[in-house]
Amino acid sequence: MSSGKITIGTYLLRRLKSLGIDIIFGVPGDYNLPFLDEIEDFEGIQWGNNCNELNAAYAADGYARIRGIGAIVTTFGVGELSAINGIAGSFAEMIPVVHIVGTPPTASQASGAILHHTLGNGDFRVFQNMYKEVTIAQASLTKINAVEEIDRVLTECLLKGRPVYIGFPVDLSDYEMDVNPSSIKPLNLSIPRNPKDEHQAALETIIEHAKKSQNIVVIVDACAIRHEMIKKVFTFIERTQLPVYVTPMAKGGIDENHPQFRGVFAGNCSTEQVQKEVYDADLILSIGSMNSDFNTGGFTYRLSKKRTIEFHTYHTKIFHAIYDKVDMRQLLPDLTEQWPADIIHKYNGKPYQVEKPNLDPKTQNEIVHEYFWHKLPEFIPENSIVVAETGTSEFGVFNMHAPKGVTFLTQILWGSIGYSVGAALGAALAGKNDNRRIYLIVGDGSFQLVCQEISTMLRFKTNIVILLLNNDGYTIEKLIHGPDRAYNNIQMWRYHKSFEYFGDGLKQNREQATTGFAGQVKTREEFEKAMAQVVKETNKIHFVEVIMPSMDAPKSLVLTIEGTREYKKRERQTQE
Amino acid sequence: MSSGKITIGTYLLRRLKSLGIDIIFGVPGDYNLPFLDEIEDFEGIQWGNNCNELNAAYAADGYARIRGIGAIVTTFGVGELSAINGIAGSFAEMIPVVHIVGTPPTASQASGAILHHTLGNGDFRVFQNMYKEVTIAQASLTKINAVEEIDRVLTECLLKGRPVYIGFPVDLSDYEMDVNPSSIKPLNLSIPRNPKDEHQAALETIIEHAKKSQNIVVIVDACAIRHEMIKKVFTFIERTQLPVYVTPMAKGGIDENHPQFRGVFAGNCSTEQVQKEVYDADLILSIGSMNSDFNTGGFTYRLSKKRTIEFHTYHTKIFHAIYDKVDMRQLLPDLTEQWPADIIHKYNGKPYQVEKPNLDPKTQNEIVHEYFWHKLPEFIPENSIVVAETGTSEFGVFNMHAPKGVTFLTQILWGSIGYSVGAALGAALAGKNDNRRIYLIVGDGSFQLVCQEISTMLRFKTNIVILLLNNDGYTIEKLIHGPDRAYNNIQMWRYHKSFEYFGDGLKQNREQATTGFAGQVKTREEFEKAMAQVVKETNKIHFVEVIMPSMDAPKSLVLTIEGTREYKKRERQTQE
Repeated sequence: MSSGKITIGTYLLRRLKSLGIDIIFGVPGDYNLPFLDEIEDFEGIQWGNNCNELNAAYAADGYARIRGIGAIVTTFGVGELSAINGIAGSFAEMIPVVHIVGTPPTASQASGAILHHTLGNGDFRVFQNMYKEVTIAQASLTKINAVEEIDRVLTECLLKGRPVYIGFPVDLSDYEMDVNPSSIKPLNLSIPRNPKDEHQAALETIIEHAKKSQNIVVIVDACAIRHEMIKKVFTFIERTQLPVYVTPMAKGGIDENHPQFRGVFAGNCSTEQVQKEVYDADLILSIGSMNSDFNTGGFTYRLSKKRTIEFHTYHTKIFHAIYDKVDMRQLLPDLTEQWPADIIHKYNGKPYQVEKPNLDPKTQNEIVHEYFWHKLPEFIPENSIVVAETGTSEFGVFNMHAPKGVTFLTQILWGSIGYSVGAALGAALAGKNDNRRIYLIVGDGSFQLVCQEISTMLRFKTNIVILLLNNDGYTIEKLIHGPDRAYNNIQMWRYHKSFEYFGDGLKQNREQATTGFAGQVKTREEFEKAMAQVVKETNKIHFVEVIMPSMDAPKSLVLTIEGTREYKKRERQTQE
Repeated sequence: MSSGKITIGTYLLRRLKSLGIDIIFGVPGDYNLPFLDEIEDFEGIQWGNNCNELNAAYAADGYARIRGIGAIVTTFGVGELSAINGIAGSFAEMIPVVHIVGTPPTASQASGAILHHTLGNGDFRVFQNMYKEVTIAQASLTKINAVEEIDRVLTECLLKGRPVYIGFPVDLSDYEMDVNPSSIKPLNLSIPRNPKDEHQAALETIIEHAKKSQNIVVIVDACAIRHEMIKKVFTFIERTQLPVYVTPMAKGGIDENHPQFRGVFAGNCSTEQVQKEVYDADLILSIGSMNSDFNTGGFTYRLSKKRTIEFHTYHTKIFHAIYDKVDMRQLLPDLTEQWPADIIHKYNGKPYQVEKPNLDPKTQNEIVHEYFWHKLPEFIPENSIVVAETGTSEFGVFNMHAPKGVTFLTQILWGSIGYSVGAALGAALAGKNDNRRIYLIVGDGSFQLVCQEISTMLRFKTNIVILLLNNDGYTIEKLIHGPDRAYNNIQMWRYHKSFEYFGDGLKQNREQATTGFAGQVKTREEFEKAMAQVVKETNKIHFVEVIMPSMDAPKSLVLTIEGTREYKKRERQTQE
């Protein structure tokens, strides 16, 4: 490359690298191959080489949840549409993911050529139009606009914490721009200032209410653990010494061993102790809330608006009054600073205790949920990452004890089954440098959608612990509807042969993970023995197929389904 | 159910059944479960129970290519978006598929509740909006509009031969409408009449040119083998006695043993004999053409517009003149009838012969493409269905001899890799009653995207012959770009263990296919021995993993890539 010049592809990669990306997920396709050349030749960024695009999108999301941003490359039409469910999940759950789509040559787009991967109508904008619904910004790169557009969408991606779309014509990847690589300045990622008067009014009103309250609690929710926000939350909590609860979507956001941590609040799904404490409060500071069905115990929250202050990214709500554009990212630090010293009392509540297991003796040696979720934390070292699939697993982790520094990834709002497998791969590669180990907990039904990504886990030499909960079917759905219906049954597989099937030990696979335990466990002893091996063999990947009774489920799942049923009944009655 | 009443779900199922659907593909999700109850209880329609939604969409497409229409059920948001690439493929390739999406309860949609599988913004139209880009009609069912809307979109689906979308709220499936089941009339599927004067003018002009021509040929293309159109084409050919060629997208549309059949025309990818014959013609009747890159040997068609008459669904084009709305579905039968008797001469050309294999002796006993595609037809019985994956397989079948009555399924325009596996499942279930056996030919790279659907093939007791061409990577992409790049390499799997991994022989799987051959073949003898078993054991499913040299490819693929490169070069030069 001439000095004083840089290709568009390399410019984009330099930007991504500077934001913390060291792997880009995706699948090759002929419209993205020249850009993949640049990735392969770029020092410090790896190519993810997933088995399919949906799994790649899940991986980019999982990576972003650990690193703050993720990226995926697909090809035009077929590839980008295969990934769109994953990107929509990132949009719903506010995860910054950069989706780069290799598009047909500029000249062919201009001439409306009937190329493969098009609808045959010469329209090259149709898929980008679809993506407008699930990305926060879109760009179509040209020779002229590349620098400006790349910078614009990456800035949006980070500031708004949601996915963006970059259409990148195949002929432009190696186009050299007159940009001196050494003169590239960092992106301006400062948050726009809150409107001054509204900000000040909100701040004063909150302090006024705080002074009048006897019993203030903090609930940390989904959006509080994104966008670097959690550090600000933590500073606030430490200063104010208030007791703190997390919702299911924020599980792990606050260390459960922290003295002020009081448990998971999700309406009826919370423990009685947690419910009592939260409902007894006279002021609730709710940070980054997302009141979706599965995050609220099936809409069984009974928080009075007259006692709740909501901190959001785009507004603040004090009881019934909205302070538009008052962003918590600025408000909370100011509130921390100005919190009146005379209402701070060192927190001296009892440390949080997980409820003891209530095991039905009839279950004997079976691996029931009540046993499993109480036992599992013993085998999870500090700073691990637990990825829990939609279904019984996401509900199982609600009230599970989290060892220190453990991060939880679940997709409670979007709830795309299979997500956890791709996300675990992404999280594993994101957490590798910090030696963070992944515990993937996935049901048999969900696993069937995405099984092939085990192959990529082997290929990248990960040491993921895969816990496949085999309860022979879609149990969450059986509980919701149709327990005896054939459509809720699935074909039984030899799940624990996954490593073997996906290439473990084949000489063609030069670099590959070392495999450890790969088998079924049917009793508590077998489970504990397998997990002891898993914990010991930290450099290996393990596959523990846990055989569970088919209709058993975590209590929180049963309660959420009950709650949702009641909600629907009320809703129908109101509207009839 | 009360007499004189019918539920919305049952009404929809009765309509689908009357159109020829006896299986509906899809994946359960809580917003579609009550409709699945109705499917399970409906006599004559089975539930497909696929492993994931994309595969289900592929299956519905494959089914529709054999039966004329297919159907898929998914759940809101996550499910429908996972399927959208498959539906877009049906849209591009003009396949009528009905996509039924189970949506949240009517009351929750009205109140804007924050439910799982939504974007969390209370907007329940966003996914249907995306589907407007890839379906020909959309409906949101209500208690009031259900009958009318179901009838409208199903009619559109069949008349326009493209996918439609039905949003079906979960609470409405069992809603009883005041419709007497015995009074339901068949759908009106008659094609709107062509504009009279334009129709007549086109007809007369074509006959005039035909009378002046010495050497007329017919080229049958993609849209001629859809919409019951192929029967009309066949009648036309038989009456006019003209020599006939097919394009890659119409492969199998005309029986290759028919005396008038002259070969596959795809520009430079055709045999020299075919090219000579077509280019020597002084009048070309092109029926249902789709001039996409891979259907034209990489834009190497050199058909003069001054000698070509194009028959389309929405217009007819005589040389440079367009006759708008003159639909070939009406024009061709009239042309057949009025074709002047004095220009009909009984066809007496030589029967079509496939070129002899040109085997490099250095390849010895290796299974190279030049050997494979010449040998394979010997093992394919009459009336089979060959499903060829995008990549080397689709190009391999171009010039392969097709035994009598064999139908070919490929996705030459849309080209979504992995399509063939789902499509083979759909085609197998569509062709079951007629004892049509499926030969699925898929590359290792493509198979990795969709491997799990082998499970569904076992579950439905199919007798598919799976030929997995293992050439260790994305060979088509290596030929296009980056032969030595790591991104074109994939993890090696134990593909031939697929039956075992996906549950063959497990006692939990009560009903299941009987498995036959399941192994690797590395030499020509091994291949022929395995195929002899396959042909003999007609009631079993087989998995033949064919080991091929990694950079070997069918000649037609190499020529298409060369053609496309030249085209791109010309295009750039024109525009610069």
